[in-house]
Amino acid sequence: MLEKLKEDVFRANLDLVRHGLVMMTFGNVSRFERSSGLMVIKPSGVSYNEMTVNDMVVTDLSGSVIEGALKPSTDTRTYLALYQAFPGIGGVVYTHSTYATAWAQAGMAIPCLGTTHADYFHGPVPATRRLTAEETETDYEYNTGLLIAEVLGGAAPLTMPAVLVTSHAPFTWGETPAQAVHVAVILEEVARMATLTASIAPPGEIDKHLLDRHYLRKHSSGSYYGQKK
Amino acid sequence: MLEKLKEDVFRANLDLVRHGLVMMTFGNVSRFERSSGLMVIKPSGVSYNEMTVNDMVVTDLSGSVIEGALKPSTDTRTYLALYQAFPGIGGVVYTHSTYATAWAQAGMAIPCLGTTHADYFHGPVPATRRLTAEETETDYEYNTGLLIAEVLGGAAPLTMPAVLVTSHAPFTWGETPAQAVHVAVILEEVARMATLTASIAPPGEIDKHLLDRHYLRKHSSGSYYGQKK
Amino acid sequence: MLEKLKEDVFRANLDLVRHGLVMMTFGNVSRFERSSGLMVIKPSGVSYNEMTVNDMVVTDLSGSVIEGALKPSTDTRTYLALYQAFPGIGGVVYTHSTYATAWAQAGMAIPCLGTTHADYFHGPVPATRRLTAEETETDYEYNTGLLIAEVLGGAAPLTMPAVLVTSHAPFTWGETPAQAVHVAVILEEVARMATLTASIAPPGEIDKHLLDRHYLRKHSSGSYYGQKK
Amino acid sequence: MLEKLKEDVFRANLDLVRHGLVMMTFGNVSRFERSSGLMVIKPSGVSYNEMTVNDMVVTDLSGSVIEGALKPSTDTRTYLALYQAFPGIGGVVYTHSTYATAWAQAGMAIPCLGTTHADYFHGPVPATRRLTAEETETDYEYNTGLLIAEVLGGAAPLTMPAVLVTSHAPFTWGETPAQAVHVAVILEEVARMATLTASIAPPGEIDKHLLDRHYLRKHSSGSYYGQKK
Repeated sequence: MLEKLKEDVFRANLDLVRHGLVMMTFGNVSRFERSSGLMVIKPSGVSYNEMTVNDMVVTDLSGSVIEGALKPSTDTRTYLALYQAFPGIGGVVYTHSTYATAWAQAGMAIPCLGTTHADYFHGPVPATRRLTAEETETDYEYNTGLLIAEVLGGAAPLTMPAVLVTSHAPFTWGETPAQAVHVAVILEEVARMATLTASIAPPGEIDKHLLDRHYLRKHSSGSYYGQKK
Repeated sequence: MLEKLKEDVFRANLDLVRHGLVMMTFGNVSRFERSSGLMVIKPSGVSYNEMTVNDMVVTDLSGSVIEGALKPSTDTRTYLALYQAFPGIGGVVYTHSTYATAWAQAGMAIPCLGTTHADYFHGPVPATRRLTAEETETDYEYNTGLLIAEVLGGAAPLTMPAVLVTSHAPFTWGETPAQAVHVAVILEEVARMATLTASIAPPGEIDKHLLDRHYLRKHSSGSYYGQKK
Repeated sequence: MLEKLKEDVFRANLDLVRHGLVMMTFGNVSRFERSSGLMVIKPSGVSYNEMTVNDMVVTDLSGSVIEGALKPSTDTRTYLALYQAFPGIGGVVYTHSTYATAWAQAGMAIPCLGTTHADYFHGPVPATRRLTAEETETDYEYNTGLLIAEVLGGAAPLTMPAVLVTSHAPFTWGETPAQAVHVAVILEEVARMATLTASIAPPGEIDKHLLDRHYLRKHSSGSYYGQKK
Repeated sequence: MLEKLKEDVFRANLDLVRHGLVMMTFGNVSRFERSSGLMVIKPSGVSYNEMTVNDMVVTDLSGSVIEGALKPSTDTRTYLALYQAFPGIGGVVYTHSTYATAWAQAGMAIPCLGTTHADYFHGPVPATRRLTAEETETDYEYNTGLLIAEVLGGAAPLTMPAVLVTSHAPFTWGETPAQAVHVAVILEEVARMATLTASIAPPGEIDKHLLDRHYLRKHSSGSYYGQKK
């Protein structure tokens, strides 16, 4: 079942490796089908080299395995929380990419310092608060998903398609797994540029008019970047 | 038309990828032919993998498409402003290369700290002022070109073939697209070295006599670097 | 003799190269067989390109060569000290991997700043004290092994499978050489992330509850990461 | 003439590229034959891709070309000054490798922070004073060579086979071009580690007893590193 979605998830996972965003068995991609309420996700702790498309696991919204011989990713319930909280999204990616994770470890939002950032994220990429001991000890992975939704507040998830979970790592999303991987690649580069900028001088954020100009020339009804679709 | 120029622009764009200066659809190269007043430029938002030489777009000095099925780069009018402001140049490159962009985000000129820099740039690589809200909101891309020309002041564009646009990214130029790409590669390395030098010690700039010696042994009538032409 | 173990050691040494953890003839892997009290180790100062599986050297617990035409690694007695001090381990790796060595040179433990670290190390990765002049001048390599055991104190070696030797370099271990190499790869990435985090903000360590959650979900009887074995 | 030496110089130049120490036409390797007083050196400003072994240039001690169709490296007279100042050496390398050049730009010696450094350099790698305007304006390249010899003072060149020329770049040497390239590779890694260490904590230098132990176990009559020769 869901063969096309399994293919999407499988390919997106390999793209994480190709872009240098994951090592060992770190990281994960999932795909959610709203019509059926089913999610396809990478199995837990399986090497990217040995994984095949048939190893992808199908779960329902409670996280129960519907199809697949292997256990789904440990982070299954984080993903499910996000699909429930963010109606417009169909793919979620989780990595430990080096620079984005460094900002997550610092517990700091990535400030919007230039147009590279503004082209993709409509403001600073937020960092969550820390989980409480109780949140960590009971249903940890699901609470991580709630934490991400909490920090996004009322913002539209597709205008801010990334959050840093403090002491942990970045999550990104989009309408598809491929879009979520694309955002993860950009986030890592934006995090790297912000790290370097901060090492040169106390950085000043981009002006609001330039942030809007760049974000909106790519992501609005008045967009004039790229080819007509 | 302009098949040789299209080939130059196409190859120079792929060289940006090969040198690791661009990712995704970022960055751009253009070529200007002074005799005809026509410019060849990469199309907007097209992937480097899928692009062919025939996708290159020809525009006139107003930015109107003369030949080509695709929309030209969003930054077309920035390029046109530069070709008008700098008579001696025939190729312009725009990247978001990581270290040069970090200096652009910091809004700081790259100081001339050594001979690697002095061999190519006859002094610090300047950073522009920020655009005003009005400049951003009306004819943003063209105003970006004017801003670059403004910070160069009276300097000969080929003695300072790069400028950092604050909150944005670096632009480089030369007599040809290949020269502009060459400068973009050197600029990124010079920016990287300056970042590292600043992390070791508050750097002292190169002495004026050494700056002149290195710049002029490569770029003057008395040049003695390289082979006779 | 010990052909299987030689193969393990040979392959693990090449894995160090493949993961970019060693250059030139730096670094080393050894394997210890508790039943026979014999160790297999890379020869000293031999290039990874030219080394064959038959160059691996077998020594006894005193460091005397039992089989092999070449001299064993200079660090042979460090390894032997570790196999004696840590009963549960069967493989040890020594590298000069760049970021972990930078922390060793700083003489500072790597603080546990996030889950990437917590997934593998149950707390900060300790740095040893400096050796005294006497320890350096008499049986230097063996004393280095004792120093590593000293800083680990009563901790179970497999819950803290890495130590930084101050002014020197990192050592890692596991039940097998492959495990020890795996830890060396993770240690380098964790050291890199910690370096970057510290450059962004004075980092706050991970909360104890999250450290335990991540470490124990991978490494305890209640583990739920990965597939059933 | 000197075909074997040309081959050495040609291969060593390509090794600089392979190790990532040079870009474009930066950097250079030369070989000196003491019996004939002749030097083989890379031609000036020729691309590594297009260069052949027959492009290598032979000069005498005054820098006059004895054989070769191309002009020798601009830095020819720097090399000649070094061969005259340091009797024991037969190969010299000059690069703009990123981290070593950053230290040269900072005008700071690389402190000896650990055994990676101590294995190759018997103390800090010195940085020269700045050249005076007069030294720069008259026989600049030869004066650069004298400056390097000056900062080494009475030290044996093979115990300190590298110097950083302030505001410029590193030079390394050895008995052969291959040895000089080997030192250039190590110097870059040592410079990188020192940069990172300094970013973690104000680094404390290695203890003298450990510096001696490591240097001498590789480079003395009592050496016990590597295989017997």
